Amino acid sequence: MTVKTRFGSYTVEFRTLAEAFAALPRDRFVITDENVGRLYQQNLEGEPTIVLTPGEKSKSLPVAEHCLETLAKRGATRQTTIIAFGGGVIGDLAGLVAALYMRGVPYVQIPTTLLAQVDSSIGGKVAVDLAAGKNLAGAFYPPKEVLIPLDALRTLDKRQFRNGMAEVWKYAFIADKDLLGTLKAKVPNCSNNVNNLKGIVQRCIEIKKGAVEADEFETSGARAVLNFGHTVGHAIESATGYSGIFHGEAISIGMVAESYLGEELGVTEAGTAALVAECLQLQGLPIELPTSIHRSELMSLMSRDKKRASKGLAFSLLTRIGECKLMDGVAQSNVEKVLNKL
Amino acid sequence: MTVKTRFGSYTVEFRTLAEAFAALPRDRFVITDENVGRLYQQNLEGEPTIVLTPGEKSKSLPVAEHCLETLAKRGATRQTTIIAFGGGVIGDLAGLVAALYMRGVPYVQIPTTLLAQVDSSIGGKVAVDLAAGKNLAGAFYPPKEVLIPLDALRTLDKRQFRNGMAEVWKYAFIADKDLLGTLKAKVPNCSNNVNNLKGIVQRCIEIKKGAVEADEFETSGARAVLNFGHTVGHAIESATGYSGIFHGEAISIGMVAESYLGEELGVTEAGTAALVAECLQLQGLPIELPTSIHRSELMSLMSRDKKRASKGLAFSLLTRIGECKLMDGVAQSNVEKVLNKL
Repeated sequence: MTVKTRFGSYTVEFRTLAEAFAALPRDRFVITDENVGRLYQQNLEGEPTIVLTPGEKSKSLPVAEHCLETLAKRGATRQTTIIAFGGGVIGDLAGLVAALYMRGVPYVQIPTTLLAQVDSSIGGKVAVDLAAGKNLAGAFYPPKEVLIPLDALRTLDKRQFRNGMAEVWKYAFIADKDLLGTLKAKVPNCSNNVNNLKGIVQRCIEIKKGAVEADEFETSGARAVLNFGHTVGHAIESATGYSGIFHGEAISIGMVAESYLGEELGVTEAGTAALVAECLQLQGLPIELPTSIHRSELMSLMSRDKKRASKGLAFSLLTRIGECKLMDGVAQSNVEKVLNKL
Repeated sequence: MTVKTRFGSYTVEFRTLAEAFAALPRDRFVITDENVGRLYQQNLEGEPTIVLTPGEKSKSLPVAEHCLETLAKRGATRQTTIIAFGGGVIGDLAGLVAALYMRGVPYVQIPTTLLAQVDSSIGGKVAVDLAAGKNLAGAFYPPKEVLIPLDALRTLDKRQFRNGMAEVWKYAFIADKDLLGTLKAKVPNCSNNVNNLKGIVQRCIEIKKGAVEADEFETSGARAVLNFGHTVGHAIESATGYSGIFHGEAISIGMVAESYLGEELGVTEAGTAALVAECLQLQGLPIELPTSIHRSELMSLMSRDKKRASKGLAFSLLTRIGECKLMDGVAQSNVEKVLNKL
């Protein structure tokens, strides 16, 4: 697959991990985390590597600065390619490091989690978090290449696998009724032969590619619809300090909440929210707001969401299964009502 | 004047300070420093403003992060325009903050120093420094508009004025024999009526615009020739910890050094270095390496310069007055020889 961007285009290809590393440019520098580094010690032997602490906390400007200083100290030049080898946190962070180092060096994404393979590795959005919110400092900086190693999914534990499946279901809900049928029929789990996932992962990437090419810089709304479940989901992640709950789990709850919100607003076909909840529950994903999270805190976090352009809140809402649209100016009272029912 | 970029084009226009502020978009946020903030208190009344400590030390990722957090806390959105109001440090920093905030918001440059007006405000290069070197973390991120307030030059002290004149002479040396004639005939100083500088500033911006349009991302060498004097100059600034010596003073010494280097290599017409030194001395700029700086330290700093693509060092060297070219792979021994003579 080829993704077109305003800076040229890049390819997205399935490769085994061994094939991926064999195909990389010689002058390179790997950024990864301790978990991935431990699992793939063999692939990383002899590689110049920066190994970070796993988790969202590493998506910060101080960690980016540490990477930049390390690259400079170890002699990386404008010709050096950064390899983002890991999940979404590593992809977002290493991509931003590549965007900034000497005003931009090439980078290649090798996403090792299902979540990163179907979502964050595609589209050139890179970022770190601020205290004030997730992904608030970043850039649109497309990779030179995305290499998808399905074999890396074998090492995911069940919870991490479900975490990625939340985004897979999202694509089905917002854009592909047929994909929803496939998912409901087999509810993929990590004990499946990973190569059986190829068709599903490919379909997700195609949907993402379509949205990204239509709206690379997220200005028209065509890309923002991918954020179904994310306005509420990001607030949940933020309220829990990005620990305890995974991104996919937060957006799973978010998708249910935003489906009920859509029904409340008369945008979403009645009965859709119940179906969304049923599907996510089949996958073993959470669909209820943890009692530890205060509704009022979620409201205040959502009002800072960067998709917001006007008064009121912005949501990507389903119209029916397989279709969605961006709604701006949603009244807080409607959101409160739905959250209180959840 | 209009500068074309890969992201669209922007205008560079002369405006008084009062006109500049009157023309700004309503939804805006000014980034400035204490010196500029004090001088232009009146213009800034009622403006949402971030006021930074003056000096190169503010060109850091932690200071950028402080600005980003402040923007978020104070409710800046994707529609907010950042106003970079100050000299080169403020322009580079505020531009990077604009590039990163929510993955990019518009910004306008209002450069208040001669140095920023003729050089750093044009071309979309934004950056902060790392411990490992100057401008090592940044982006190519063009402004929406550059407004040049010549009246702001009235508040420059003599040393700051000369600081900017170093870049003005540079343009003459590398690209414009006629401009050199003008400069030698009148040697501008800050007590001149600032409007008399208009023609000179405009000519410098035209030369910069030409180089930037030919080579926006500094890949072909057409833009890198603007770095005449800067390989040695940056090393001098770095060796002095960006304090004590101004950028223009450092590149003044750098231009003399690199002219002698060019003659040593047989690239630069004999006698050019003496003329370069004579001109800069006329302007009251330094032309000798301070004895406090060790030649060996300069050598090691230069070997980390980010223009370097291969073994050896990269320099923009004059061929004769008004012409220059990029030279890669210059042997350290040649550079050492010249530095030892200086």
